[in-house]
Formats: sequence, structure tokens, C-alpha cells
Amino acid sequence: MDYQHLITFIMEMLGTIAFASSGAMTAVEKNMDIFGVSVLGVVTATGGGLIRDLVLGITPPGMFRDPVYALAAIVTSCCLFWILYAKKEWLSGAFRTTYDKIMLAFDAVGLGIFTAVGISTAVQNGYRDNLFLLVFVGTITGVGGGILRDVLAGETPYIFVKHVYACASIAGALFYILLQEGFGQVTAMFGASALVILLRFLAAHYKWNLPRLKGSD
Amino acid sequence: MDYQHLITFIMEMLGTIAFASSGAMTAVEKNMDIFGVSVLGVVTATGGGLIRDLVLGITPPGMFRDPVYALAAIVTSCCLFWILYAKKEWLSGAFRTTYDKIMLAFDAVGLGIFTAVGISTAVQNGYRDNLFLLVFVGTITGVGGGILRDVLAGETPYIFVKHVYACASIAGALFYILLQEGFGQVTAMFGASALVILLRFLAAHYKWNLPRLKGSD
Amino acid sequence: MDYQHLITFIMEMLGTIAFASSGAMTAVEKNMDIFGVSVLGVVTATGGGLIRDLVLGITPPGMFRDPVYALAAIVTSCCLFWILYAKKEWLSGAFRTTYDKIMLAFDAVGLGIFTAVGISTAVQNGYRDNLFLLVFVGTITGVGGGILRDVLAGETPYIFVKHVYACASIAGALFYILLQEGFGQVTAMFGASALVILLRFLAAHYKWNLPRLKGSD
Repeated sequence: MDYQHLITFIMEMLGTIAFASSGAMTAVEKNMDIFGVSVLGVVTATGGGLIRDLVLGITPPGMFRDPVYALAAIVTSCCLFWILYAKKEWLSGAFRTTYDKIMLAFDAVGLGIFTAVGISTAVQNGYRDNLFLLVFVGTITGVGGGILRDVLAGETPYIFVKHVYACASIAGALFYILLQEGFGQVTAMFGASALVILLRFLAAHYKWNLPRLKGSD
Repeated sequence: MDYQHLITFIMEMLGTIAFASSGAMTAVEKNMDIFGVSVLGVVTATGGGLIRDLVLGITPPGMFRDPVYALAAIVTSCCLFWILYAKKEWLSGAFRTTYDKIMLAFDAVGLGIFTAVGISTAVQNGYRDNLFLLVFVGTITGVGGGILRDVLAGETPYIFVKHVYACASIAGALFYILLQEGFGQVTAMFGASALVILLRFLAAHYKWNLPRLKGSD
Repeated sequence: MDYQHLITFIMEMLGTIAFASSGAMTAVEKNMDIFGVSVLGVVTATGGGLIRDLVLGITPPGMFRDPVYALAAIVTSCCLFWILYAKKEWLSGAFRTTYDKIMLAFDAVGLGIFTAVGISTAVQNGYRDNLFLLVFVGTITGVGGGILRDVLAGETPYIFVKHVYACASIAGALFYILLQEGFGQVTAMFGASALVILLRFLAAHYKWNLPRLKGSD
């Protein structure tokens, strides 16, 4: 199934670029130096998988056995830094609006594929029957990097306050578990990714929010 | 020893409810949505055990092998959220005062039993003779969830600034190690729990504080 | 090679004292109590090695198998606390200036030796050929404690915003990997430490900073 691996790899790369960019952009807005920008980019792109591997007892974690994702995250972060360094006016205005829209799409793809890859990793390590663990590792692979990004930047994690984000990942994880019983891993992987991406677009478009006590601001 | 397991389970459940409630309440006060409220509830209730299991190399961590505690934490957090959503006035006033008193009691029970269960887990995994490790895992099982809660909420961890909290846990851990030599695990477990609960009530009642440079505020 | 172990031990102790002091000082400035001061001291001194060991799958982590460093960090933190408790005026003025200079030297020694020990640990555990992992564990052993210190204190991690710090550690890690091919572990260890120390002194003296978008403040 060569196509399957290629498509997975492309989706993971789009996700890595989107996640690294969101980390790097957060760091730029906190006026970190280029080292901080790179670290926040890498942490956002690979942190979810790192937590997953620690919980599953996979050492050294996958990001060190196949460093292509970490390197892609570093390159992405540095490029973003130098572009913004040269063109500071791009931090706002029409360019930023277009950039944010592209990144929203990449980010949705990343959230979808990372959630699916997270569960797939747990299944391959023999945890197919532990539903709670599967949902957890799928979701943490998707959203863990963003949580670490916000904690390191001193922010309340985005996923706790804004829009339907982690819930899209949880829904995808549950859909994966449902699909793998009847249709196998490959269908589950792409079906779950597609659902997450769909939910994220709907949530962003219709500004879905979960209820909270004092209302949304 | 059926009674022993039942009592341990009831104490752990009281602790889970108290810890989840404190996480959920912190999230409500930060105006997080119901997802954030649930996550902070679960993290506070199970985070200490999670860190303990990562340090001891127990994978997947216990919270995934026996998810009843995580589920209890989620249910507790959601109930608290919906009650406060329906009755916002309960966030302050006489209801809150009574609630805080009950939670103080539950929390003390939880701190005691979690400390004892933490050491017991390490002993069962063959680390009986490593005193420093035993004290660490006992204390981190008791207070680790609260530290993660405060970091995720962007607060200075409570246990570093207010009242005698972690010290009660450390005292209980040391008492456990002392008791297990002469009286076995069961006595050590309940003796240590009882000491922690006693110390917490005394500390709360007499407003014990550890010294700091600029005085308590 | 008795001398080698002795020198390594002395360098690690100087680093432990410097790292613990920086954690304890941060805690004092946040008005934490003596427990918080001790915890932040220990976390800063041993946190880097703890993350390294979790990533490498070494459980329980080294800080529990040889608690002398954790104990040295606790003693250092408590001494600093009581000295400042007795002599609050030492928090500023000429004493503080001298103290900061000594600590800068100790800290550079610690950063150097911790980076080298981190890589050496990974090599001993069979990861000699994974360059990315070696650089990561060397750097995280050097700077991880400081990151945890700042996260727990609610600060943006120092290493993301100020002076050339982590980069000195990364340069040392790369130098170690280069040296170990031709000259063996011992030379690599001391050569890499020396380079880190040199870079830190140069960076502090000439106020080297990495570029950032909005300039240094």
C-alpha cells in the first residue's frame, strides 16, 4: 500500500508545518529569540507524539527515531522567523488574514492525521482493547503539542477556552475505534482524519463554542 | 481482606471527587468551557498517579488500566459545571462556604490515601529500600495533580505558597515507611493516611503556614 | 581514572549548587514558602536529568538511584532561604552583585558538565549513533531544569528570551559528538564542558543575544 504511506506522510507534513507555524507565531508574539521560536515550533509539532510515547512506554519516543518531523518543524519555524524579520508588516494586514486561513486548513489536516496516527500507534503496540487509552492517546497526539506550546508561552491552553478543537479530535478517535472493528486500520485512519477535518471546518465557520459559565468573549 | 479494599476504594473515590472538584472549580473561575473543566478535573484527580507511574516506568499508567477514577473525575467535573451553570449564585454565598468545608474534608482524605497508595505502588514494584524514591512517589501522588492543575491554569502552584499541604503528605510518607517495617503494608497505609488527614485539619484550623521571606498575605 | 570521576563529581556539585540556587532565588522572589523554595531548587537542579531519563526510558530516573544531587539541592535551597531570611538586605546591593557573579560562574560549569553527562548517559545506554537524540538529551539535561523552574514559577522560560544560553549547550553537544569519534568519551566530556563554559562567559561578557523581531529589551 505505497499510496497509503505517501498520503499519510503528506498529511503528517502539512500538520507538522501548521503546528510548527502556530508555535513559532506564538513565540514571535511573545518576542522570543530565534532559538525560542524554533523550540516552540518543534514542541508544538512533536509534543503530542512525545507525551503519547511516554504514556505507552515507547522509548526513545518516535520523534527521535525518525527526526524528519522535528527537522521539518525547525526549518518551518526558522523560515517563518526570517520572513517576518524581513517583512514585519506581514504580522498584520491582508497577508496575515490569508496566512491564517491557510494555516487553519493545514492545522485541521494535522489534527485529523495526528489523532489517527496516535491511535494507530497504540494499536500497533498491543493496546487495541483499551478504549479509554485509545481515545486518550489519539486526542493527546492531536492536541498535546498545543497544550505544551501554551504552557511554555505562559498562556491558558487554547483548547480549554476557544471553539470546538479537542472535541473534534475526541470524535475522530471514537470514529476510528468504531471503524477499525468492521473496516480495518487503513479505512479507520482516513475516515477518522476526514471527520476531524470536517468538524474543525464546521466549528471554525459557524464559530461553534462549548458552553461556559460566564459566556464567550 | 475484603474490608481493606473496600475502605481503600471509598477513600480513593472521596479523594477523586475532591481533587476533580478543585480542578473543575479552578477551570470555572478561569472561564474555561466544559471541555476545559473536565480536563482540569481529570488532570487534578489522576495527574499525581500519572507522574508516579512515569517515574516508576509503569506503562501504560494505572489511570488507563483502571479508568474508573478518570471516569469518576469526568462525571464529577461535568456535574459541578452543570449545577453552577444552572445556579450561578452558588459560586458565592453560604452554599459556597458549606461546599468549601465539605471539599476540605474530602481533599484531606484524598491527600492521605493517595500518598499511601503511591508508596504502596512503589513497594509492590520492588522499590521498598529506596527511601528517597518512596517519599517522592508518595508525595507526588498526593500533590502532583494539584501542581499540574495550577500550571495548566497559569497559576503559581498552590502548594508552594499556602498552608501546610505538601508537608502533611511528606510526613505521612515518612510515617508509612516507619510503620511498614514493624506492622506491614495495611497498617502503614491506614496509619499514614490518618496522619495526613489529621495534619491537614490542624493546618487548616490553625492556619499553619511555613515561613517565607516577605510574610504571608 | 579516579581523577576523572572526582573532577566530574566536583563539577556536577558546583552545577547542582548553582542550579538549585537559581531555583531557590526565583521562588524567594515569588514569595514562596520554604517548601516551595526547596522544591524549585531541586527541580531546577535535577529536572533536566529527569526529563532525559524519561525520554531514554531509564526508570527510576538517576536522581532517585543516587539521591546525593537532590539532597545537595535541598540543602543549598534551605541554606539560601535561611541566610536571606536572616539578612533580607542581601537580596539587593553589593552582596547580591558578588553573589550573582559567583553563581554565573557556577552556572556555566553546571551547564557544561550537565550537557556532557547527558550525552554520556545516552551513549552508555546504546544510543551512540542517533545524533539528533544525543544533541537533544545533552541540551535538555543542561537546560531542562531551568525550563521547569520558569514554568512552575509562571515565567516565560529564560532560555527563550535572554542571551545565548541553550545555544552554548547545543554547541557543546555537537562538539562532544565530534570529539568522541576521535578521542573517546573522557576527552569529549571535558572538551565539550570547556566549550560550553567558554561560550557562556563570552555571551555574558559581551551580552550576546540571538535575533528577535521586536529587538532586545
